[in-house]
Amino acid sequence: MPNIRLIVEYNGGEFHGWQMQEGLKTVQSELHRVLELVLREKISVVHASGRTDTGVHARGQVVSFFTSKAPDLHRLTHSVSSLLKGALSVTDAAIVADDFHPRRSAKKKQYSYTILHRKAPAVLDKGYVWHLTADLDYCKMQEAACHLIGTHDFTSLRAAACQAASPIKTILESELCLSKDYVVYRVVGKGFLQHMVRIIVGTLVDIGRGRLTATMPEILAAKDRRAGGITAPPFGLMLDWVDYEDVPLVDK
Amino acid sequence: MPNIRLIVEYNGGEFHGWQMQEGLKTVQSELHRVLELVLREKISVVHASGRTDTGVHARGQVVSFFTSKAPDLHRLTHSVSSLLKGALSVTDAAIVADDFHPRRSAKKKQYSYTILHRKAPAVLDKGYVWHLTADLDYCKMQEAACHLIGTHDFTSLRAAACQAASPIKTILESELCLSKDYVVYRVVGKGFLQHMVRIIVGTLVDIGRGRLTATMPEILAAKDRRAGGITAPPFGLMLDWVDYEDVPLVDK
Repeated sequence: MPNIRLIVEYNGGEFHGWQMQEGLKTVQSELHRVLELVLREKISVVHASGRTDTGVHARGQVVSFFTSKAPDLHRLTHSVSSLLKGALSVTDAAIVADDFHPRRSAKKKQYSYTILHRKAPAVLDKGYVWHLTADLDYCKMQEAACHLIGTHDFTSLRAAACQAASPIKTILESELCLSKDYVVYRVVGKGFLQHMVRIIVGTLVDIGRGRLTATMPEILAAKDRRAGGITAPPFGLMLDWVDYEDVPLVDK
Repeated sequence: MPNIRLIVEYNGGEFHGWQMQEGLKTVQSELHRVLELVLREKISVVHASGRTDTGVHARGQVVSFFTSKAPDLHRLTHSVSSLLKGALSVTDAAIVADDFHPRRSAKKKQYSYTILHRKAPAVLDKGYVWHLTADLDYCKMQEAACHLIGTHDFTSLRAAACQAASPIKTILESELCLSKDYVVYRVVGKGFLQHMVRIIVGTLVDIGRGRLTATMPEILAAKDRRAGGITAPPFGLMLDWVDYEDVPLVDK
């Protein structure tokens, strides 16, 4: 039973999020469908490094599944990309150790969130940015972003309905990059809670436009979702990559 | 008769190029239509810094037109962007001197052309890149790109049907930038001939994949379109900006 690992890129606007849902086109269900079509066999559940919400994009989502026999990886990659043309592409495929699991084996992952900060609405980046016109105090936002680095209780910055047993997460990198009309928030962490990156971005924006006057340490200390800011819309968010350090490849 | 200058961003995939054509949705015709709608008056022909082909995008196309009275620029900008939502945005507007002409007054302009160079087809950049899978010799391409800097006869690298009186043009900057799966060609010049940037890119690619063995100086010296390479597809091309140095703004 070979364990197949794929790296996939997808346009979140084309799917109702990652997770399989009856009657909806999701990344998990579409991948499962076309993989069985291409491989001409039943495969296991397709696991991902993390569920992405409806509208969230991925440049380097990592998924895995078990097959009964080792497939032709080149053909598999090509066929899946062709069948999901324009919505999802397989950028890499490998046979990995049986105990590899895209979420549990992950060491860290990076998300980025892009804000188009100007009067004119988005054209070239439509569907990939959050368009904001209000004045933003970048310095305050940058300072608040810095305070997220480290191990914290993220109760204030996760979905109220988040099911994770522990709200404690470790953030390794957290910064705001400015470039002309773009404000890009980049965060690297060992794992994230439900809606966490979108709530972080919404909170940074609320701090930047003066709707929130509490500092980030105060917001975290409150351990109350109501202390945080709004949830930024999904389409500005991108899962950039997932890092596994030394994953033993069985074959390539 | 105020002369109004706009900077516009557009998705070339939404239009049949710049130039007005009977029965086709072009940038010039759509802009003319919505400007008359917003201003509630007949306006002059809308001129651009240059015609973009069908499918070619612009981040900073500069256009101008004459009105009978000075409009509210804020309202104009907002209304035009709203009416052409997602296809074209006005990123700046100003009243300029009567003798300002977006093409004749231009000092230089920059185009960039993006190639997605990997096996997997485009998803996140779909419609904005030329997807190539063949091996490319970047060093040969970079060297050939360098040879374009200076004043040359571009007969070999312009459309056979190009109407321009002189094939002589001056290129100020010409380089290939590599970044992971992307190969971006960036060129700054005082002016360009018909299809010139697309033919330059096609020629660089033909050199990179070994289909053309002549050097760029030899190709230029031939003064024959058949000496150049193919014409790269339009959707990878972006008009980045047009520089006018000191344009006297009448009002802002």
